[in-house]
Amino acid sequence: MMECIDELHKNRNLRELKKYLNEINPADIAQLLESIDDEKKRVFLFRMLSKETAAETFVEFDFDTQENLIRAFSDTELKEVLDEIYIDDAADIIEEMPASIVKRILRNTDTETREAINTILKYPEDSAGSIMTPEFVDLKKDMTVSDAFKRIRRTGVDKETIYTCYVTDESRHLIGVTTVRELFLNDYDDTIEDFMETNVISINTLDDQETASRALSKYDFLAMPVVDMENRLVGIITVDDAIDVLQEENTEDIQKMAAIVPTDTPYLKTSVIETWKKRIPWLLLLMVSATITSQILTVFENKLSALSVLIAFIPMLMDTGGNSGGQASVTIIRSLSLGEIDLKDIFKVIWKEFQVAVVCGISLSLVCFAKLMLLDRIIFGNSEITFAVAFVVSLTIFIEIICAKIIGCTLPIFAKKLGFDPAVMASPFITTIVDAVSLLIYFGFATLILSI
Amino acid sequence: MMECIDELHKNRNLRELKKYLNEINPADIAQLLESIDDEKKRVFLFRMLSKETAAETFVEFDFDTQENLIRAFSDTELKEVLDEIYIDDAADIIEEMPASIVKRILRNTDTETREAINTILKYPEDSAGSIMTPEFVDLKKDMTVSDAFKRIRRTGVDKETIYTCYVTDESRHLIGVTTVRELFLNDYDDTIEDFMETNVISINTLDDQETASRALSKYDFLAMPVVDMENRLVGIITVDDAIDVLQEENTEDIQKMAAIVPTDTPYLKTSVIETWKKRIPWLLLLMVSATITSQILTVFENKLSALSVLIAFIPMLMDTGGNSGGQASVTIIRSLSLGEIDLKDIFKVIWKEFQVAVVCGISLSLVCFAKLMLLDRIIFGNSEITFAVAFVVSLTIFIEIICAKIIGCTLPIFAKKLGFDPAVMASPFITTIVDAVSLLIYFGFATLILSI
Repeated sequence: MMECIDELHKNRNLRELKKYLNEINPADIAQLLESIDDEKKRVFLFRMLSKETAAETFVEFDFDTQENLIRAFSDTELKEVLDEIYIDDAADIIEEMPASIVKRILRNTDTETREAINTILKYPEDSAGSIMTPEFVDLKKDMTVSDAFKRIRRTGVDKETIYTCYVTDESRHLIGVTTVRELFLNDYDDTIEDFMETNVISINTLDDQETASRALSKYDFLAMPVVDMENRLVGIITVDDAIDVLQEENTEDIQKMAAIVPTDTPYLKTSVIETWKKRIPWLLLLMVSATITSQILTVFENKLSALSVLIAFIPMLMDTGGNSGGQASVTIIRSLSLGEIDLKDIFKVIWKEFQVAVVCGISLSLVCFAKLMLLDRIIFGNSEITFAVAFVVSLTIFIEIICAKIIGCTLPIFAKKLGFDPAVMASPFITTIVDAVSLLIYFGFATLILSI
Repeated sequence: MMECIDELHKNRNLRELKKYLNEINPADIAQLLESIDDEKKRVFLFRMLSKETAAETFVEFDFDTQENLIRAFSDTELKEVLDEIYIDDAADIIEEMPASIVKRILRNTDTETREAINTILKYPEDSAGSIMTPEFVDLKKDMTVSDAFKRIRRTGVDKETIYTCYVTDESRHLIGVTTVRELFLNDYDDTIEDFMETNVISINTLDDQETASRALSKYDFLAMPVVDMENRLVGIITVDDAIDVLQEENTEDIQKMAAIVPTDTPYLKTSVIETWKKRIPWLLLLMVSATITSQILTVFENKLSALSVLIAFIPMLMDTGGNSGGQASVTIIRSLSLGEIDLKDIFKVIWKEFQVAVVCGISLSLVCFAKLMLLDRIIFGNSEITFAVAFVVSLTIFIEIICAKIIGCTLPIFAKKLGFDPAVMASPFITTIVDAVSLLIYFGFATLILSI
């Protein structure tokens, strides 16, 4: 597509260029324009867009591009874009812009919109209130289907979704919900009260945005109504925003599991120092925590020098323990996050992990024993690996896997119980703990069985 | 809720029980009924549901519960449920049921439905075709808004979504798309052709279901049209199914990153042996791969015995390398999966990771050096830690972090280039490679600087 745009741009074939651009989906236009480094050209092409497409494209840009464009806009252009975009998108943009631009934006919106934006901005970050939009269709219970259609036709153009309609009383309490589909399936003179769903599922403004999005997905809603403490309907969260929230939360979980402080800036747009800031805290903490393994090794230093063949298995034992524990912790973290298991399932989980650990432990220690005795000792003729040494290493694997899986499955649940995010209890953290435990088990058996 | 149901059930207050149950959202009813161990009671309660609610609840159950219920159903009951559910849900269920139940299901559906189900079942697993439903609203371009409304009112009850309408020609080619919202915003006698969107975005039946779902989310669609090789519209994927696909793919990615063979069965429903099967392949592979680190240690065994203080730092060096590499690989895997970076960005990525690695390396090696010299040597009086030893350890950290980050960021990109899933190149795999590299760097510097 870019080649075609470049060609039309170079030949100053503006009419064709305009037509071509305006036929592309706004999400694609945004991607195309963001890939252009020449800022003047980008602004020029953006100005080719029709008012509506321009606004739809604008909300798809990342915040840097939005900031640059706003700086290039005249007040009239800014107003045109602001008039077309939804209030939740406007609030998102304002949250990320520097003060001077925020002032310009607020100066160019009407009083009503400004107040609506300010309401959303007041809710805590990551709350349902902070991502909702007040642009929903509200109906009254005594309206007929035909009244409802008229109202939707009249006011629908400004609503983020028209397909789910909310029925409120005089004090704006949410008393029912219906859909355009239901409206279609009833007769024009049926009253809404007679077929609306009265058992309305809603979310509170202060609930977490992830809770709201998961509930929306669970109930297959196109929008989730958001109510205040008095059950007054104040906004809705639409399904497209819920998907974005779920994807962001997944990314955050994955980052935490990899010992990274979460960020929602795309990789290539994060500066080196920003990336460093997100990665160094856990690296430092984990490095310092590894002091404990160094201490354990120091204590056993002399014994190790006496039977140095034991040193060779340290990395393998540590990795196997870490991997086993990591599998358990990551499985539990994900299940907690998807709501498949709960704090009360802890004993079921431990019992299950214990059984899995026993089977995994038997398989791995048998393979390890066979490998040491057949491959290393008999085929490669490494005479240092005696039956006793192979036995100690294999026994360590068996016991360390049981410990690793139990530690791996309990720590995320405890973290959740204490109100922390279970995701930080993933592989890197578990590995550090399991390393120490594995070494203690290893040297314990070595001392006992090999009498060193 | 369960207490109330139990109470009504015990008192045989069937009228109230029926009323109470049918007011609950089907997703919640499914959860409640699944928590009941007594199968007879579950079937009894299920039979209290109205036909429509029963069907909506049925598709929310897991496959085990569905199978048990079908076994308890009479043919009439089965037919009633099947008549109400959507074709994509029916296909999902059939795919998971044993042959005897599949036969019963197909015997109780009409020919048309049976053919539609068979079409979906023929598409490869995880393809767009395998999750689509043929129940969409199709319009003709010369219809007026009022014709369209009539058609939606007449046929809409059986469609999975009515809000996005597809315009097809006589040969079922997809030539346009419009929405109920657009229909509302135009006059009753306007012709669809005049306002329909002709630049239609669609997905091919054989495209990956994840690609389809990501595209739906990118364009904020409520449904994604699926076309065959001849651009004939054969089905749609609705937004609720797309969310489920995205969540499943996220779970799979996370499992792969933790060295687990992916599964979509919830944790507590997977048997011990199933869980073992998913975890043992990677554990075994990684354990055997760790042989290389054992070999390296064996080679340097004598040198280590000569200066045994060096042994103590092995776990710390291995963990730090593994964590640094894991951070890089997981970041890149996620960015690849979200489409934020592409194969062509490889040099940008390497350059960025190199810079991040240098800053991380400087920070960590300085902290490590300070800790060794000040804390361990001066305060704890460990005289084995000489300036040279501290220097070797710190220098190893610096260099290993650079290697780890470069390995961590390139392997997922190479995996993608070769057509593998980048997610398997996460922490556990990277750790095994980085371990070996770290040890070589460590012993290299030790030999050079400490002349052992």
